[in-house]
Amino acid sequence: MRAAVFRGRKEVAVTDVEEPTAGPGQVKVAVAYNGICGTDLHEYYAGPIFVPTAPHPLTGGQLPVTLGHEFAGTVTEVGDGVEQIAEGDRVTIEPVYRCDQCPPCRAGHYNVCQQIGFHGLMADGGMAQYTVVEARMVHKLPDAVSLELGALVEPMAVAYHAARRGNVDAGDTAVVFGAGPIGIGIWFALRGLGVEDVTVVEPSQVRRDALVPLGATDVIDPETTDPAEHIAERTGGRGADAVYDAAGVQPAVEAGLRCLGSHRQMIAVAIYEAPFPVSLLDLVLRESGVSGSLCYTSEDYRAVIELMARGRYDTTGWVSHIQLDDVIEGFERLHAGKAMKLLVEPS
Amino acid sequence: MRAAVFRGRKEVAVTDVEEPTAGPGQVKVAVAYNGICGTDLHEYYAGPIFVPTAPHPLTGGQLPVTLGHEFAGTVTEVGDGVEQIAEGDRVTIEPVYRCDQCPPCRAGHYNVCQQIGFHGLMADGGMAQYTVVEARMVHKLPDAVSLELGALVEPMAVAYHAARRGNVDAGDTAVVFGAGPIGIGIWFALRGLGVEDVTVVEPSQVRRDALVPLGATDVIDPETTDPAEHIAERTGGRGADAVYDAAGVQPAVEAGLRCLGSHRQMIAVAIYEAPFPVSLLDLVLRESGVSGSLCYTSEDYRAVIELMARGRYDTTGWVSHIQLDDVIEGFERLHAGKAMKLLVEPS
Repeated sequence: MRAAVFRGRKEVAVTDVEEPTAGPGQVKVAVAYNGICGTDLHEYYAGPIFVPTAPHPLTGGQLPVTLGHEFAGTVTEVGDGVEQIAEGDRVTIEPVYRCDQCPPCRAGHYNVCQQIGFHGLMADGGMAQYTVVEARMVHKLPDAVSLELGALVEPMAVAYHAARRGNVDAGDTAVVFGAGPIGIGIWFALRGLGVEDVTVVEPSQVRRDALVPLGATDVIDPETTDPAEHIAERTGGRGADAVYDAAGVQPAVEAGLRCLGSHRQMIAVAIYEAPFPVSLLDLVLRESGVSGSLCYTSEDYRAVIELMARGRYDTTGWVSHIQLDDVIEGFERLHAGKAMKLLVEPS
Repeated sequence: MRAAVFRGRKEVAVTDVEEPTAGPGQVKVAVAYNGICGTDLHEYYAGPIFVPTAPHPLTGGQLPVTLGHEFAGTVTEVGDGVEQIAEGDRVTIEPVYRCDQCPPCRAGHYNVCQQIGFHGLMADGGMAQYTVVEARMVHKLPDAVSLELGALVEPMAVAYHAARRGNVDAGDTAVVFGAGPIGIGIWFALRGLGVEDVTVVEPSQVRRDALVPLGATDVIDPETTDPAEHIAERTGGRGADAVYDAAGVQPAVEAGLRCLGSHRQMIAVAIYEAPFPVSLLDLVLRESGVSGSLCYTSEDYRAVIELMARGRYDTTGWVSHIQLDDVIEGFERLHAGKAMKLLVEPS
């Protein structure tokens, strides 16, 4: 079968590899769509970062590895001992390997498992015609959710998890910095949670324009509108009830902290490449906070799939498709900001 | 009467000023002890910072102003309309002026009032033989609490408030960075809250030594012991349940974030002079957080006074006394690290 194999920095080969089979407790999936994630770009341009160069303690996987951890498809084979999943099921995959033993796992937060592994980084993933996953990673898709949306459940679950961590209630005011796929996902998640008053802050005209057809009503350019003044005006000086940083850069964090109301949180949901200056005094003077958000749990997957089934997600204008053979061109388009989200079609 | 009047940077005069009288709703206090706070040092060496140079919206006060916001004494006069306070009462003062109208005040968080003022910064304070305060600022001291301890309620309430904001429970593991008066106060507060497993991180030998007679059992020097490794060892890799930064410097925050367990908070309780690099990635990877803590509310005052009445605070080795005339010498001793806490005796 064909697969996009990551061999090291700037080395991804679309090549023939052996087709896997489902062992006990496993499920084989014919991949319909696999999204390219920012993490994949980091691996390609600056990696290996998450891809291990020695066997991973949970998966045994290491370089070279087939990329792809955002995917959906159809079950073609079910291993021994697997119940409640059948050939022909339309599924999306929660691609997490966890140890179930470390303190976070024992506390129910397996998304911050101390040994966490991902299908598509620490094991061969979904940028291939077929991939084999653990049965417990499988979430079935209801008829109302297309395989295209199914491939977006993973990044939308990252965003939904972050949205929830902001402790928002219906009627709250929220601000999202960055309108990449995670920022857009937070916007969808907040609306799904009943938060209608959402300001999106994004310096790129292309990204700002992409939000409008989705229904966003307050999208500002931080280069021409001061976000903190804008939010102070919208909230009568109270400040935002939640701020999300999905941009991962210093100006966004700096402005975000100034948007926050007292006793409120900024949720940091980005891979920050290096420490940068942060004004802790802003946190002290309002007793506000910054908290990190990482990945998701099954609860987030179920919530996103349910919202998708209710028609609350829309791919118009920000999701495009490419063939597996064109994956490197896809990396380049994303890296250059010429696409927002690309779904790879392996077959 | 004699008072220490702040007239501008490096200008504090101990001089004769008019003795105030209690107006309606006010109380006159003969000050027994007034602590010198780090804030007073900031005003003296780098101010005016908090001391206003135009009339403050709540107090009308402005430069020059009599310093002193940490004090206790005896009531000598009671204004019209004041009930439940009588001449001769031994009292400590919660020195906050608040607007009662801004969003934080309305939410019950008057410690982050958007117009907050302090007696001794925005109005003439307790580094004087007498001072006049609003009746609602007064907390009576039980017989078991000395006036010396009474003058320490204010900084100990800052620390108690911070300790509570760490959401600690009895049996938790906590880490305090910085063993100045606030760090010591957090240590007392944590023990008052039933947290016995407290590590204090402090590079100064003098400060480390001061903690031992108080009963601290785990006091480390970050220059010879890596705090994160030390805490990982103590907690079996789980990390601390709460971390407090009462040092206000970059190395403490950096180490503190690495000490935190997943889904736990670092409480920032310092006046950070400028932004410095912070690793938000540390927060993301553990879904941990940083939250600010500022001042206190009446609840914290009452809790500290009750703990003091139960003998849970001890001034041995870290509190000394000076006369009002020697206040500038006191600033210099504190600034040079030659004293930890000085109580000024105005009479």
